[in-house]
Amino acid sequence: MTIDAFPRGFASDNFAGVHPRIMEAMAACNHGHAMAYGDDPITAGAKAAFNRAFGQRVTAHFVFNGTAANVLSLMAFQKSYGAVLCSDLAHLWNDESTAPDRQLGMRLIPLRTMDGKIDPAALEEALGKGHGVHGVHPVALTLTQPTEVGTLYTLEEMRTLTALAKRHGLGVHVDGARLGSAMAATGLSLKEMLVESGVDVVSFGGTKQGMLCGEAVVFLTPGIGEAFPYWQKHSMQLASKMRFISAQFEALLAEDLWIHNGRHANAMAHRLLEAVRSVPNVDIAFPSQANSVFARIPTPWLKPLQEATFFWPWDERAGLVRWMCAWDTAPQDIDRFVQTLKTFAAETRS
Amino acid sequence: MTIDAFPRGFASDNFAGVHPRIMEAMAACNHGHAMAYGDDPITAGAKAAFNRAFGQRVTAHFVFNGTAANVLSLMAFQKSYGAVLCSDLAHLWNDESTAPDRQLGMRLIPLRTMDGKIDPAALEEALGKGHGVHGVHPVALTLTQPTEVGTLYTLEEMRTLTALAKRHGLGVHVDGARLGSAMAATGLSLKEMLVESGVDVVSFGGTKQGMLCGEAVVFLTPGIGEAFPYWQKHSMQLASKMRFISAQFEALLAEDLWIHNGRHANAMAHRLLEAVRSVPNVDIAFPSQANSVFARIPTPWLKPLQEATFFWPWDERAGLVRWMCAWDTAPQDIDRFVQTLKTFAAETRS
Amino acid sequence: MTIDAFPRGFASDNFAGVHPRIMEAMAACNHGHAMAYGDDPITAGAKAAFNRAFGQRVTAHFVFNGTAANVLSLMAFQKSYGAVLCSDLAHLWNDESTAPDRQLGMRLIPLRTMDGKIDPAALEEALGKGHGVHGVHPVALTLTQPTEVGTLYTLEEMRTLTALAKRHGLGVHVDGARLGSAMAATGLSLKEMLVESGVDVVSFGGTKQGMLCGEAVVFLTPGIGEAFPYWQKHSMQLASKMRFISAQFEALLAEDLWIHNGRHANAMAHRLLEAVRSVPNVDIAFPSQANSVFARIPTPWLKPLQEATFFWPWDERAGLVRWMCAWDTAPQDIDRFVQTLKTFAAETRS
Amino acid sequence: MTIDAFPRGFASDNFAGVHPRIMEAMAACNHGHAMAYGDDPITAGAKAAFNRAFGQRVTAHFVFNGTAANVLSLMAFQKSYGAVLCSDLAHLWNDESTAPDRQLGMRLIPLRTMDGKIDPAALEEALGKGHGVHGVHPVALTLTQPTEVGTLYTLEEMRTLTALAKRHGLGVHVDGARLGSAMAATGLSLKEMLVESGVDVVSFGGTKQGMLCGEAVVFLTPGIGEAFPYWQKHSMQLASKMRFISAQFEALLAEDLWIHNGRHANAMAHRLLEAVRSVPNVDIAFPSQANSVFARIPTPWLKPLQEATFFWPWDERAGLVRWMCAWDTAPQDIDRFVQTLKTFAAETRS
Repeated sequence: MTIDAFPRGFASDNFAGVHPRIMEAMAACNHGHAMAYGDDPITAGAKAAFNRAFGQRVTAHFVFNGTAANVLSLMAFQKSYGAVLCSDLAHLWNDESTAPDRQLGMRLIPLRTMDGKIDPAALEEALGKGHGVHGVHPVALTLTQPTEVGTLYTLEEMRTLTALAKRHGLGVHVDGARLGSAMAATGLSLKEMLVESGVDVVSFGGTKQGMLCGEAVVFLTPGIGEAFPYWQKHSMQLASKMRFISAQFEALLAEDLWIHNGRHANAMAHRLLEAVRSVPNVDIAFPSQANSVFARIPTPWLKPLQEATFFWPWDERAGLVRWMCAWDTAPQDIDRFVQTLKTFAAETRS
Repeated sequence: MTIDAFPRGFASDNFAGVHPRIMEAMAACNHGHAMAYGDDPITAGAKAAFNRAFGQRVTAHFVFNGTAANVLSLMAFQKSYGAVLCSDLAHLWNDESTAPDRQLGMRLIPLRTMDGKIDPAALEEALGKGHGVHGVHPVALTLTQPTEVGTLYTLEEMRTLTALAKRHGLGVHVDGARLGSAMAATGLSLKEMLVESGVDVVSFGGTKQGMLCGEAVVFLTPGIGEAFPYWQKHSMQLASKMRFISAQFEALLAEDLWIHNGRHANAMAHRLLEAVRSVPNVDIAFPSQANSVFARIPTPWLKPLQEATFFWPWDERAGLVRWMCAWDTAPQDIDRFVQTLKTFAAETRS
Repeated sequence: MTIDAFPRGFASDNFAGVHPRIMEAMAACNHGHAMAYGDDPITAGAKAAFNRAFGQRVTAHFVFNGTAANVLSLMAFQKSYGAVLCSDLAHLWNDESTAPDRQLGMRLIPLRTMDGKIDPAALEEALGKGHGVHGVHPVALTLTQPTEVGTLYTLEEMRTLTALAKRHGLGVHVDGARLGSAMAATGLSLKEMLVESGVDVVSFGGTKQGMLCGEAVVFLTPGIGEAFPYWQKHSMQLASKMRFISAQFEALLAEDLWIHNGRHANAMAHRLLEAVRSVPNVDIAFPSQANSVFARIPTPWLKPLQEATFFWPWDERAGLVRWMCAWDTAPQDIDRFVQTLKTFAAETRS
Repeated sequence: MTIDAFPRGFASDNFAGVHPRIMEAMAACNHGHAMAYGDDPITAGAKAAFNRAFGQRVTAHFVFNGTAANVLSLMAFQKSYGAVLCSDLAHLWNDESTAPDRQLGMRLIPLRTMDGKIDPAALEEALGKGHGVHGVHPVALTLTQPTEVGTLYTLEEMRTLTALAKRHGLGVHVDGARLGSAMAATGLSLKEMLVESGVDVVSFGGTKQGMLCGEAVVFLTPGIGEAFPYWQKHSMQLASKMRFISAQFEALLAEDLWIHNGRHANAMAHRLLEAVRSVPNVDIAFPSQANSVFARIPTPWLKPLQEATFFWPWDERAGLVRWMCAWDTAPQDIDRFVQTLKTFAAETRS
C-alpha cells in the first residue's frame, strides 16, 4: 500500500500534507549552522511576524503540537488548587488524554454547551461556587474558535464570556487550532476578535493550518507567561533545530497564507453543506460556520461511506458524523463524496 | 543578519541543518492524505526499518525531541517510589530541566563518573542502599553512548554495568542521541552493543544525527513499554502528521545514513584532535573517542576564540571547552579553526 | 472565648470531639516504647480487628484523613491515562481541592445523580466513550455510602453499579466516611453490603465516627494495593507513632462502637426529621436515610438560625441547608433547635 | 505480646509515647463541638503561642507528620523548574521516599557534608551552575538543626550558609524535627538562631518532641507561604478535628516543655557518651552535640546488642550505629545498655 492508496477524505485537516510554500521555506533555510533552541534570526523573524499579525506587540513561542500549545498556554494561570473551565466538547477535555491534568496539576471542569459554545449561564454557575480551601478555584476559561463542532462564537458572545471570566479574576485562553477559518469567516482582525475581547493567550494552530509540525503560544496580555521558556523546556516542547519550525510560521503568516487556507477550507465545507442539504436522510446537526459539516446519517451508511471516503464519526451510536475540509480539499473531492452520498440515499429509499 | 552570517562552528550537532536525503524524503511523501497519529504506511515502514537495524524484532515509537525520548523510555520502569540512576554528567541530569522529575514522578540519583563513564563502584553503592518504604528505590539505570564528554563505554564496561543493574532488578536505558558515532567508532552492530548487553530500551537520536526533528524510543526487550502510546499522548509527544517524522527515520536508517553521518563526524573530530595536539597551551581533557574534542585552553582565549568560530565552553571557569563535530562539518572548518588556535597560541607565547 | 461558648450544633460530625472509649484507648497504650511506623503489636491487633469486622481476610492501612483515604484507595487502580468516575456530589469532587487530581495524576469525571446516587444511565454513558489514546480511560468508580446528601444506595443499586463497572474492567471504591450510619440503617453486614457487592476497597471512616484523627483504607479484593506502604509514605500519610491511631481503631471496632455511634446519629436525625416535618416553610429536600436532614428553608432564616445553632448551608442561594447529627448529638440539642425553628416559622407567618 | 514487651531503647525518639502533659491537654479540650479545620479558639491560641516562642509575629500551620512539614515548608519557594539544595544526609533526601520530588515537582540536589553539616564550598559550587532553561534552578536551601548525625550548626555556620543562599535569591528552610535539643544545647533563643540568621521557614517538630502526632510549619519571613492553607488541603494535611493537634502544641510550647524535653534527651545522650568513651572497641563517630550518639562497633556485636536493647544501625556494613535518646529516656536505660556493651567488650577481648 502506498500513500496514494489513501485519497483525500474528510477525516481531519491533520490528514492533509504540508502546504508547498511552507515546505519551500524549510528547504530555503537548510544551509549553514544556526543557534539551537530558538536563538536564531529565523525564529526572531517569525516572532516579529506575530506582532504584525496581531496588530500589536505580542509574545510568541513555538511548540510541537496542539495539546502542548493548549496546556502551556494555560500554565500562565497555574495554581496548585486551580481549575480550568472548558466546554464539554473541548479538545482539551475530550482529546488530550490526561495531559492537561498531569502537566498543569489542575482540574478541568466541563461546562454545558449550546451549538458547541459555552452557555454563559453554565459559566456563571461554575464561577459562583466558592468553597474556601475545600473546593477547586477556577483560574482560567478556555474557548475554542471555531468550536469543535464547526460553529463560531460571535464577537459579542466572545466578549460576554471573556468579561464574565475577567470579573472573577480568570485568565482567558483561546484554542485556535483552526483560527484561520474563523478569521476568514468573520472578516475580523485578530486584534478585533481576540485582543480587544480581552483574550490573554492563544493557541495559534500550525499543523492543521498547513504546517508539518508546530503550534504557537501567543501571549497577548503583557506580563503574563514570562517563565514560558522554562515551562517549555521541562514540558519537553523545546525544539533544538527551532529554525525549521520558525521558518514554517514565517511562511504561514506571510501574505496571510493561514487565512487563505482557512477561507479555502470554509468554501469547501460550504460547497459540501449546500450539496448535502437536499440529500434525503442527511440532517445537518450544527450550523456550519467554518470548515466542517456535522450531519446525522442513517447508521447503516456509516461503514460503507467511510470505506468510500474516509471520515470520522462524532457519535457513532447516534449516526452523527463530522466532515472536515482542509487547505488541500478540492471541489472534486466534495463532488465525488456527494455523489456517493446520493447513491446511498437512493438505495435506502428504494 | 542572515543565517549565512553564522558559519559552521563546533557548538553542537544540533546547530547543523537537515541532511539532504532526509529533506528529500519529507518532500517525497508530501502528497495526498494520510491517517494521522502514526496509523499510516510510512510510519509502519519506518518502524519495520528499526527491526532490520537491530537485527531482531523491536518496538519503535517516534517522539519530538531528545528529552522526551529519554523520559518516555524510562517511563517503562516507572514506580511512584522509584529512582533513576544516571551519570553525574548525564544530559538527563544536567540539561533537561525538571522534565525527568516531573514527568516520571521519580528521583534522579547522579553517580560518580570516570572519563564520563559511570564508575561501577558508585553504581554498586547506590544499589546497596535498601531502606524499606523510607528511601527511594532504584528502578532503572541510564547510560549515554557515546558519553557527554565524547568517550565510549567498551562492550565489556557496558555489560558489567548492565549485568549489575539487572541483578538488582533494574531496567537499563541507553541515551543514544549520537549513537551513530558510537557504532562507527566501535564497528559493532546494534545487536552486539545493545541487545546482547541486555539493554532494554534506547533513545535513538534523530535530530543530532541529521534529521529536522524527531527521536525514536526503541524497546528491545519484549513485553515492556506496552502502554507507550498512552504515555506518548499525555506527555504531548504524539505528532498528528506523523508520516513526516517517519519519513525522516526511514531515510536516516536507509543505507545506514546515520552511521555514515557518525563516521564522518568522528573523522572530523579526529582531524581536529590530531591538529590541536601540538598546539601549545591546549590540553586534551578526555580521550576523544567519538565526534567531539574536549580541551583545556587559557581562559583569556575563550571569548575571542568563540567570536572567531562559535563553540560552547563546558566549564568556563576551568577553561574547559567542548568542540563538537556534526554530519556537515567540513575539513576546511577544522583547518580554519586550528589556524585561529595556532595564532592565539603564537600571540600568547610572544 | 472557650470551647464551651460553642455548643453542639448540626454543622458536621467532625465538629464533635472524641468518643471517651477512644480517648481512653490512646491513654492506655501510652507507656513504654513501640516500633514506629506501624510495626507494633497494637497496629497488628487493629488490622486483625478489620478481618473480623468484614467477616474475611482483608488488608487495612491507616492514614491521617478522609481525603487521603479516598485518594490512596484509588491509587490501586492508577493509570497515567486514567479517570475516576464519581458522583457530581462526591466529597472527592467537591471538597478535596485538587488532591485527587494531583496525587493520582488522573482525571475525575463527575456523573449525574438522583437523590445523591449515581444514575446508572450516566455511568453507562461514561463507560461507552472509547477514544483510543486520545481520551481518558475510566479505571475506577467511587460510590459514597451513605451519600453526601444522607441517602443510601440499596443493596441492589450498589450491585447494579458495581457490576456495570466491573464489566468494563473498573475497580470499585466506597467512600465510607460515615459507614456506621449505613450499616445501622440497613442492618446489613459489611460482608453483605460491600464484599459480596464486589467492592474492591473502602475508605473506612474514623474521624467522623468518633476518633480524634485517622481513617482506614481497607482492601477487600486480594492482590490489589500491594504497594500501598510505598504510596502511603510518599503521600505523607505514614504516622510514626502509629500505635495511637491503631489504638483508636481497635476501640472503634470493639463491640461495634462505630455502628452504635452511627445508630445513635441516625436516631437523632430521625428525631429531627419527624419534628421538622410539620414546621411550616421547612421542606425536606432528600429522603433522610442516615444521620442528616436536608431541608429548604426561607433564605432570610439562614443567618439568624445559624447564629442560634450552627450548621452549614448546602446551597445558600437556594435556601438548601444540611443538618448533620453526630455520635454525641443529644435529644435536647434536637429539641432546642426545633423550638428555634418553630419560633422562626411563627414569626414568618405572622 | 503486649507493649510492655518492648522496653525503652535507643531506636528513635518516635518510639517514645506522648508526654503526659500533652495527653492531658487533649483530654482537656474533648468536650463540646468546635469549628473544624482549625477555625477554633484552641488553634488560634496555639498559633499565638508560636509568636511568643519566636519573639515576633510568625505564621504557624499544623500538619500531620515531618515529611509533610518539610515538603509544605518548601512549597513556599516552588518553581516548576526549581531545585532544593539539601545535605546528602538530609531526612528529605534519604528518608521521605519520593514525597519531596512528587509533591513539589522539583529536584533535590544533595550536597557534600562534614560532620553532617553542609560544606559551604559544596553550596557555592551548586549555586554557580547557571544553565539557562536547560538546567534546574536552585530555589531553596534546607538545613537540619540538629543534623541527622547529632551535630549542631554553630550560629556562625548557619549564618554563613544562609547568607550565601540569600545572595543567590534562595529561600532558607530549617528542618527542626528535634529543634528543642538544639535550643537546649546552644542556649540560644529561636529569634537568635533562626530569625536573625535569615531563615524563612521552619519545620517545628511535634512528634519527636513529645506529641502524639503533628508538626508545625512556621513562616518567619512576612509575605511568604500565603497560599499555605490551599497547599495543605490538596496535600491531604488538613486535620478536621484540628483542635486536638493545636492543644498538643499549646502544651508543648507552654513553659518551654519542648526545650525541657530536648535538654533531658541531650543529658541522656551525654551520659551515654561519657560512659561508652572508655568501652574498648567502641569509637565515637561524630561529635555528640544533641540527643544522640553515633559510634562504630564491631559488626558481630550488632545483632545481639539490638536484641538486648533495640536501636537502628546507621551503616550496617561499616558497623556504624545510632543511639538516640528521647524525652522519656531514663538514666537506668543508659546504665543497663552500657552494662551490656561492657559485657560484649569483655567477651570480645577475652
